[in-house]
Amino acid sequence: MKVSEIRVLYADTDQMGVVNNVNYLRWFEIGRAEWLRARGKSYKEIEASGCQLPVVEANLRYHAPARYDDICEIFAAPSNVRAASAVFDYQITRKSDGQKLVSGSTRHACIDGSGRVRRFPEELVALLNKED
Amino acid sequence: MKVSEIRVLYADTDQMGVVNNVNYLRWFEIGRAEWLRARGKSYKEIEASGCQLPVVEANLRYHAPARYDDICEIFAAPSNVRAASAVFDYQITRKSDGQKLVSGSTRHACIDGSGRVRRFPEELVALLNKED
Amino acid sequence: MKVSEIRVLYADTDQMGVVNNVNYLRWFEIGRAEWLRARGKSYKEIEASGCQLPVVEANLRYHAPARYDDICEIFAAPSNVRAASAVFDYQITRKSDGQKLVSGSTRHACIDGSGRVRRFPEELVALLNKED
Amino acid sequence: MKVSEIRVLYADTDQMGVVNNVNYLRWFEIGRAEWLRARGKSYKEIEASGCQLPVVEANLRYHAPARYDDICEIFAAPSNVRAASAVFDYQITRKSDGQKLVSGSTRHACIDGSGRVRRFPEELVALLNKED
Repeated sequence: MKVSEIRVLYADTDQMGVVNNVNYLRWFEIGRAEWLRARGKSYKEIEASGCQLPVVEANLRYHAPARYDDICEIFAAPSNVRAASAVFDYQITRKSDGQKLVSGSTRHACIDGSGRVRRFPEELVALLNKED
Repeated sequence: MKVSEIRVLYADTDQMGVVNNVNYLRWFEIGRAEWLRARGKSYKEIEASGCQLPVVEANLRYHAPARYDDICEIFAAPSNVRAASAVFDYQITRKSDGQKLVSGSTRHACIDGSGRVRRFPEELVALLNKED
Repeated sequence: MKVSEIRVLYADTDQMGVVNNVNYLRWFEIGRAEWLRARGKSYKEIEASGCQLPVVEANLRYHAPARYDDICEIFAAPSNVRAASAVFDYQITRKSDGQKLVSGSTRHACIDGSGRVRRFPEELVALLNKED
Repeated sequence: MKVSEIRVLYADTDQMGVVNNVNYLRWFEIGRAEWLRARGKSYKEIEASGCQLPVVEANLRYHAPARYDDICEIFAAPSNVRAASAVFDYQITRKSDGQKLVSGSTRHACIDGSGRVRRFPEELVALLNKED
């Protein structure tokens, strides 16, 4: 599901004239945050209810470079939702020509306020399993 | 006082082929942290003792651009230490030729754990006023 | 003039629970880029026409902290436009309550493709002097 | 091979009180750059000789969180060197207790100045295959 658009800043580029590889993990964060918000529950609310979802794994494939001032579309969706972990998948494309730029995923654990692994609340599992 | 050296990363550059202006505030943080450490008290310890020093003002002058792989020297020193605020002054130079790259300052308030402005502990005032 | 809105990412916060001071210079870039775009000329086009506007000075005053998931409004406008330099002024406010968060400015030189200082093209001076 | 040490900045932390996941890709860059330098050839020199090594894939596993002011050790080494791509493997550990924090890898293509995929120069293959 397309969840957001973002415009490439000068500060995102490097001297190769393209978006530096380190920047896309920020856009992945936007992806999962906006997917959750679109489903009716912000990550801020999830956290306030006693559940943090730190990234425990991230994978990125860089297909083509984004360039300064490009508008990029962020697609995100959960997958592989388990009792105490879930995956988000992402795709970043350039809006003007649909070029796939970066795809990837992040895996998240569920921990409570004191850092202990816990099971997802049922409500959150339901949310993550909702069809797009 | 020279407090640290840092090497420019590819991720710090932008498509003009120079370090993007947003990156120097990170180096200012290194500057004040290492000045304090060299004086015998890390910022982590200061914070643990109930005193936070958020940046309330920052000023930067960009004299010449740093480039990829340059080693930059960070100079830092406090100035204008008052009851509840203090200034740090910075200078960033390129090591190879001594070229002045960026100069500037940050002003810091002193707040307690609950965010209220407080006076600096005496010990910290003494530390900040110590001659280089 | 309000030129953009941006939502605070988790990655923008620090362990004080607020947006770290280094992040606002990115938002200043968004401010001036979107001001120019709203006036009919993107910075990308200006650059393509042979004129780069590097930041030669930046000043920031932090009035109150932005927090995770806040929507921030970015106001920007040029001021003090001269033959070969111009200033942009910025204000960042929280949308929910109008709280002023950060104000500041950046001063820009005008350089040609080979890095030499040049005068602004007349068209750009006219653009920067247009009333809001 | 241990190639560098880096100290966690306040700006690297997030409101969970740990280093935000987006920051480690910067440290991976330090890892491969310093491995190459230790082998006698900086990435800057490689690039000047007509060979760029963009990241085409990145994988990160977050084992434990780094915290403010931690000194982190960066280990890096190439693996799986082929005609036109190579992998770097990384491990980030906390110096004080040896705790493994993040491990991962980046895969790099070899492209020439105009962005076309090319084979690695022989000299670079030899360098990457040198035993630690």
